[in-house]
Amino acid sequence: MTLRQLFDPSAIAVVGASATEGKIGYEAMANAAAFDGPVYPVNPSTEGELFGAEFVASVTEIDDDVDLALLCVPGPAVPEVLEECGEAGIGAAVIYASGFAEAGGQGEELQEATVAAAEEHDISLLGPNTSGFLVPGIDLRCSFASGVEEIPEGNVAVVAQSGGVGLVLAFQSRRQGRGVSAEVGLGNRANVGFAEAIEYFDGDDRTDAIVLHVEGTDDGRRLLEACRESDTPVVAYKVGQSDVGDFAESHTGALTGDHELYTAGFAQYGVPTVDATDDLLDAAAALGNSPTPDGPNVGVVTAQAGPGIIITDRIQRAGGRLPELTEETQARVDEILPGITYADNPVDTGRPMPEFGEIVTAVAEDERVDIVLVYELFEAALGYPVEELDGLAERVDKPVLFATEGIEEDLAGQRNALRDAGIPVFETPERAADAAGALARYALLNDDDALADGGVAAGGGVLPDAVADEEVSADE
Amino acid sequence: MTLRQLFDPSAIAVVGASATEGKIGYEAMANAAAFDGPVYPVNPSTEGELFGAEFVASVTEIDDDVDLALLCVPGPAVPEVLEECGEAGIGAAVIYASGFAEAGGQGEELQEATVAAAEEHDISLLGPNTSGFLVPGIDLRCSFASGVEEIPEGNVAVVAQSGGVGLVLAFQSRRQGRGVSAEVGLGNRANVGFAEAIEYFDGDDRTDAIVLHVEGTDDGRRLLEACRESDTPVVAYKVGQSDVGDFAESHTGALTGDHELYTAGFAQYGVPTVDATDDLLDAAAALGNSPTPDGPNVGVVTAQAGPGIIITDRIQRAGGRLPELTEETQARVDEILPGITYADNPVDTGRPMPEFGEIVTAVAEDERVDIVLVYELFEAALGYPVEELDGLAERVDKPVLFATEGIEEDLAGQRNALRDAGIPVFETPERAADAAGALARYALLNDDDALADGGVAAGGGVLPDAVADEEVSADE
Repeated sequence: MTLRQLFDPSAIAVVGASATEGKIGYEAMANAAAFDGPVYPVNPSTEGELFGAEFVASVTEIDDDVDLALLCVPGPAVPEVLEECGEAGIGAAVIYASGFAEAGGQGEELQEATVAAAEEHDISLLGPNTSGFLVPGIDLRCSFASGVEEIPEGNVAVVAQSGGVGLVLAFQSRRQGRGVSAEVGLGNRANVGFAEAIEYFDGDDRTDAIVLHVEGTDDGRRLLEACRESDTPVVAYKVGQSDVGDFAESHTGALTGDHELYTAGFAQYGVPTVDATDDLLDAAAALGNSPTPDGPNVGVVTAQAGPGIIITDRIQRAGGRLPELTEETQARVDEILPGITYADNPVDTGRPMPEFGEIVTAVAEDERVDIVLVYELFEAALGYPVEELDGLAERVDKPVLFATEGIEEDLAGQRNALRDAGIPVFETPERAADAAGALARYALLNDDDALADGGVAAGGGVLPDAVADEEVSADE
Repeated sequence: MTLRQLFDPSAIAVVGASATEGKIGYEAMANAAAFDGPVYPVNPSTEGELFGAEFVASVTEIDDDVDLALLCVPGPAVPEVLEECGEAGIGAAVIYASGFAEAGGQGEELQEATVAAAEEHDISLLGPNTSGFLVPGIDLRCSFASGVEEIPEGNVAVVAQSGGVGLVLAFQSRRQGRGVSAEVGLGNRANVGFAEAIEYFDGDDRTDAIVLHVEGTDDGRRLLEACRESDTPVVAYKVGQSDVGDFAESHTGALTGDHELYTAGFAQYGVPTVDATDDLLDAAAALGNSPTPDGPNVGVVTAQAGPGIIITDRIQRAGGRLPELTEETQARVDEILPGITYADNPVDTGRPMPEFGEIVTAVAEDERVDIVLVYELFEAALGYPVEELDGLAERVDKPVLFATEGIEEDLAGQRNALRDAGIPVFETPERAADAAGALARYALLNDDDALADGGVAAGGGVLPDAVADEEVSADE
């Protein structure tokens, strides 16, 4: 199965399209209409035009090669519509309706019939029970949610078990000034699950990092193997540490499963895990915009001691390490700023100053440092050391992260210049430190030497071998 | 000692004021000049005017009752300047310079001499080694940092051990659309420490919650007792869980100390603790804008299941509980929305709908619910249930928190309407859940019945009695 027809279609049919505002068939059509290819509204009981396209009665009557159908029809109608899609040669469908496996009983039967119809005609199904997906870079918005046309293109693919959480992440990425290469709500994963999505976005030129929101799945091993096969870095957010009871099962038809087992499994397969939506996007911003770190050693440069202490503490708790700088680097720092407040790691300059960029460069060039994290409150008279940081990460072949705070209107221009120079920028000391920690864990988890010794868990501990042999499955 | 002269002065002297941009004596004067009272630049070697005020040679030459002196002079000059301040009847001073106790050796002697001079003349000292403080409500900005004039007035007093972290919190509060009643960087706490600041802001009409950033202190018991005496809710962020070595000591002259001991001590004295700057402001927004909760039971209403699962999971880990709703409430919910996606706690409506506000009201009125948390992605056609939520918290006498996500420009108007109606609004499901958890812990920690049984720790466990008898001190 390839998901090309789903995520990069030639033409789209919106089945159950409606001229009534507020209905899913209207909202999905409104969002899809911006696509730079034919979009056909399909409804046997409606005539006329919708967003400039003529209604047709059935997908079988469209005189064009449609790849993708958006099914805005009630659940019970889905298997029959899929039969028609099959006849029409449509290779992918999004099913928005709920009331399938997540509802139990007859819903489970309905989902079985749906999967059977899809498999007969080799149709990839997103959903049921999803808000759909977005690919902003080609104006492809197969979602009924409002506001999605404003989500900008970025380089991170969001793959969420819950369509709602997928949207939360997409909107958040906009709020952070980042954007997404794609946002996918898997829903019930009738025949497109995590493994298929990871495989697709690993091969996607627009995607430099993949983030997963996972509630629970009964094919954990396939998910993990897809992560390991992916050349694109993957970060996972597994929800459900405490007991959320039958509410979770009522959602996407999956229990949230054994949290520890998932976390250990992800670690074993090279995937750092995080514990919040904002952490997930922060880790992706770090991984997707930086050279791959060689190790977990973080060099910290701060213009204010207090945030520096927060960062130092937090990096270590997140699995990173703070090596002592080489004598050569310490001497260099001391030469640039004699009598500096604190010249070891972290280097604390006491306040922003013109030499700040030179200090960052010295630390970045230290052979003991794998990852650089810089903290500086914005000072209008000095600005950020944009010139020194531009190209630094590439030159030293290490991630260089930057965190700051100040008045948004004052600092926005310089912050955006840093981002344009490929430097991921973060809003709080903790979030920057957590992102550096995710980079450090990624380095440890994907270090061939460490893996040969049996794998390295988050935080640097070695995983018990038993976990590797255990099937990560919520339903067992 | 009263801090009235420090935080509510009649007139201010800026000692070491300078006409040279970039110098601390210039920046401090520039920020102070906006104060609605006389501000005198003091410098024996400068003549003329600065920001409309005539330079004077010494504080003893000012023909006015000056309460507060901002000392923009090198550390070694401080004791002598304080002598002059004493002669002039000045009762409070801010010392920006570093190189005191935090530097060790001669710095410690300098700090002793400084404290001796201050005590002789009964002068309250903020610092040394601080960026100062802000009281936006009276345009009082005794800080050399840039951008502070843009920090809006709010109802939370930020008391930070580190001046840098104090600024981080103040800028963050602006980014979150909140603001502060005051922001104070304590620095070395020569004679104004946490206890004095808590006592002052507990009596401050502009302050509805107090947040603490704590690295370490040698008078832990006084800090805790001040927290217990405070009628205004206090939340604390204790940094330094892992070993941050001598870097911390080099900062404000305090070790970060035993993290567990601090956390247990705060719990024992009724103070919920959090683990990040954004969590600290979120908890304060919840505590400072809500009725005090009677217990830890959270009723959750969500329009999307995925964020609901995240919230349900997270609240329980943060010390809250999710009670089963009464049969009466469940019947009421079922009557409002027959066949609702999930009618227990959390109540999941599946998507936003016109009846959403009614559902929230039903849950808020449930006798088993102490705290209400609502999650809803913004849908342009529906908006938020502003009308139903306006006044609800006051009427049911319970906190009502709201979390949402969407396109900022689309939702800002309605979100601000919710805030104007006294509803704290949060940006991510996790941060809202953590704020609800802080409210739950506050309720548990300040429940007289629970305290009679020996106190309740964060997360609901009972503290060992031993902790109550232990001096919380980093230096022991």
